[in-house]
Parts: sequence; C-alpha cells; structure tokens
Amino acid sequence: MPDTQSALVFTEVMEWSDGESRRHQDRLAAEEPLEIRIDSKPLTVTMRTPGNDEELAAGFLWTEGIIDSPSQIAEIRRVKPDGAPHDNVISVEIADRSFDPGDLQRNFFAASSCGICGKASIDAIRLRGLTPPNASFRVRPELLCDLPARLRDHQQVFGQTGGLHAAGLFDDTGRLLILREDIGRHNAVDKVIGWALMKGLLPLANCSMMVSGRGGFEIVQKAVTAGIPVLASVSAPSSLAVRLAREMSLTLIGFLRDHRFVIYSNPERCLPSEPAT
Amino acid sequence: MPDTQSALVFTEVMEWSDGESRRHQDRLAAEEPLEIRIDSKPLTVTMRTPGNDEELAAGFLWTEGIIDSPSQIAEIRRVKPDGAPHDNVISVEIADRSFDPGDLQRNFFAASSCGICGKASIDAIRLRGLTPPNASFRVRPELLCDLPARLRDHQQVFGQTGGLHAAGLFDDTGRLLILREDIGRHNAVDKVIGWALMKGLLPLANCSMMVSGRGGFEIVQKAVTAGIPVLASVSAPSSLAVRLAREMSLTLIGFLRDHRFVIYSNPERCLPSEPAT
Repeated sequence: MPDTQSALVFTEVMEWSDGESRRHQDRLAAEEPLEIRIDSKPLTVTMRTPGNDEELAAGFLWTEGIIDSPSQIAEIRRVKPDGAPHDNVISVEIADRSFDPGDLQRNFFAASSCGICGKASIDAIRLRGLTPPNASFRVRPELLCDLPARLRDHQQVFGQTGGLHAAGLFDDTGRLLILREDIGRHNAVDKVIGWALMKGLLPLANCSMMVSGRGGFEIVQKAVTAGIPVLASVSAPSSLAVRLAREMSLTLIGFLRDHRFVIYSNPERCLPSEPAT
Repeated sequence: MPDTQSALVFTEVMEWSDGESRRHQDRLAAEEPLEIRIDSKPLTVTMRTPGNDEELAAGFLWTEGIIDSPSQIAEIRRVKPDGAPHDNVISVEIADRSFDPGDLQRNFFAASSCGICGKASIDAIRLRGLTPPNASFRVRPELLCDLPARLRDHQQVFGQTGGLHAAGLFDDTGRLLILREDIGRHNAVDKVIGWALMKGLLPLANCSMMVSGRGGFEIVQKAVTAGIPVLASVSAPSSLAVRLAREMSLTLIGFLRDHRFVIYSNPERCLPSEPAT
C-alpha cells in the first residue's frame, strides 16, 4: 500500500457551489519528480506520487527493456544529494551490464532513424524477444466484472483526492495481490511490475491486471513485458494498444464496468467459446 | 477540428454484457508515434493522435522552452522518410538558433545535477523568465460552469470512442476559440497552444483553458508559458500543480462540474470578493 503520509498533501482551497463560496482544507495527491540513476549516472526523471520508489525504479528498468533479468539488479538505494532537503533520487546498481549508462541515456530517448510508425513501435517490442503470455490462462467474465469494485475498495488515496490512477494485480481467483496508486498511470503499472520483479514473481503468467482510466500502447507494452495474459481498463484502449495486444496475443479488455466489458483481442481467455452470432 | 478520418480507427470487437456476448464494429481513438525534428535532427518522439501535427510540434517547442519567440519558427514541414508508408515526422526549421540541436537532445532529457525536487521544478520555470499571467482578467463563476458542456458538445472523436482527452480555449465571453483532442492530455494542450502561436495570438492574456481529466504540473506549466490566466479541469489537480499555480499567480480550478468547482489559487479572477466566512 502506498505511504499515505507522503502521497497526500493538505492545503486550503475555496469551493464555489451554486453561488456560495467557502474556504476549506482539501487533500491533494502528491506529485514530485523522481530521478532514476543507473550506477550513479542519471537516466531519467519522472513525475510521480512519492511512495514505493524502489519498485517504480525496478519496474521502469524492466518494462522499458533496460534490464532483461531480475538478477541484473545488484542494489537499489535511495540517494540524498548533498545538502538536499529531499530524497527524490533512486540509484540502481546493475550487475552484468552490457551497456554504457551514458550511451543508454542518449539512446533511450533518441528517436529511431528507421521511420517512426505504429508498426515500428510494435516491431521494437518483438525485437526485445518478448513472447506471448500464457495461452492457457482463463478468467470467468463474472469474475472480471468484480475487479473494478475490488480495485476501488482498496484505493487509499483516490477516495480522498480523486486525483490518482491505480493499477491492480489479481490472481486467477480474482484476489487482489497488489495495488499501486500514482498520478501517472504508467508509474502505477511500473510499481506493480517492480513489486513482482523484486518478489521474484515474473512472469505473471496466471494474473490479470486492471488499470483505471484508459489503456494506451505504453500500458499494453508494460503488461507484455511482465507476461500478464489479461489486461483490463475502465475506459477505452487506443488503436495502437489494440494492435500490440493482438500481435502479442494478450487479452485486452476495455470499458469494464456495470456487468459489461468489451474484448479487443484473444477473447478465448475469458469466453468459453465463440458465440453463435 | 481534428481530422476525424485519421483520428479514428475501426475494428471488430466482442462485447460481453450480462452473460451475452456479441461481435460488432467499434471505433478506436488513433494512436501513432510522432517524431519531432529540429533542423532535421531528431528531438523527441511522442505518442499522439494524428491530426494537427504542425500545431503539436510548434506548441511542444514553445511550452517546453526550446524556442522563446514565435519568430524563431522559420518553417514547419512534414517529412516522409524514404520508402516509409507513413508521415509521422515533423521537422521544424529554427531561425536565430542559439543552441546545437544535438546538445539540445541530450540536455532536454538529461536530469538536472542540482537535486531534483518540486521546488527545483518550479525554479526551472522561473528561470525561463516566465511571468505571471494577466492579473486583471475576470471570469464569472456561472460562465465557468458552462465550459464543461461547451467542451463536450464540440468533442468530435470522444463521443465516438470515449478514448480521447480534450483541451479547449475560451475567450472572456466563454466562446470556444479552439478545441483539440488527443490520447495524451499534454498533446491536446500543446496543439491548442501551437494553434495560438501559429495564429500570432500569444500570450493568451484574456482566455481560459479547460482540460478533461485532471490537472498535473505539466499542464499548469504549459498554460503558464502561454500566459493563460485561468486553467480549469474536470478532476483533481496534483500538489505540484497547485504549488506552481500559486507561485505563478495563475487561477487553477478543479472539479468543474454540476454548478460547482474548487479554486486552488488566485480566486480573485473568478470571485468578486473574499467571502464573509
């Protein structure tokens, strides 16, 4: 569970409602930059909600393909720059490093020179050697319909601020294994996957993941790297998310709410057989 | 208005509803990578909904502080790499360039070595020489309450897919000047600001901007660069968004819906005077 101390910030606001205005104390979802370093060299800065930063760093390195084995993480530690009143830096020491962190930083963000398109983005995932998730995993539709309520019930900060995304990981019986909240949906997903990585649970071959909001390419990509067979979101997926899910044979579900959902790829994991229509 | 041809993609999906499943054609919000180049050198790749790409590139360069005068944009053109079946590359030629694009690419993403924290993020905005927006701009609360419906009425793609964010710019009478939709909220904002930049309308000293979803640091930062005095969102802002809005004297509004809203900073622009409570 997130550290609700640092994930929440209190402040005075003014509320206007039907012509009346009043001051009151309100709770905000915390947002702070986090710098991730590899072997003490800066790699990236992400805006995140503080809490579970080690998981975020581990998950980020994994889902972005910077490491391809959990054993490559030799140490994850928080760094407090000299004189800084904060601790928004996480440094990861990498074992069996096959790259130069300086090059990585440049290449990580550099645009590919070979034409940029959706197909190239999907090819890049394939080039990383990722394989389709567990084909025999099954989840009942009725169980899927229970996930949104289970996610909401466990969201600590969202209920107080309305300002956080959530990602939840469920086992094959629908039990919530872990939930992470963050102002960035991609961070919430990285924290969940980083948690699994640090627990030695990857690949997550018998799990479903549910995220708040919509499901874009980036979220499907991260789920694929963790071997998650079923990914569901409350809202709509994008065109490229659907293409990637189909290419990688991941079951992608959208609009999961009120005893209804839409299946965009590989329905066999949640429907017993093809419908008669 | 976005090109709804390229902003929408049709696909066959399966819908499950209360035990019944059926196939049907569905519409997806398009997501494709866009490479932005400066003087033919790659700067960044962003996942966006195709349409108004020139505005997106111009807005991005402006809001990220890569240019500080509209006159620095000598030309914006679409580039089709040799043999590529797509046109997901925009190149911007910069006049009076005071930097090397290669250095820019490295520095643009490089983490600052001087400790990362919310205060440093805000200081970086100040260092760019940005000043508080128009202090005398006023907007009535009742007019603000009309904005969500006006935004929704003009959203072309969202109604068909449920998958797009929107940013709308309104004049001091509440008239919608421009609306842009994108799978990324930051892209929708960059397209709006890029549109204004290309029309010679910056700074937007007498405008309000409204965005779907929540308001994070990045969105407030972009609004500040465009001189927008009032920024409203449907959902909650983050802690750092509120801090930046207060530092820069921008009026930040959240939870704007159903004749109610919360004011996080500079309420004088939308409330006649301090309440008696």
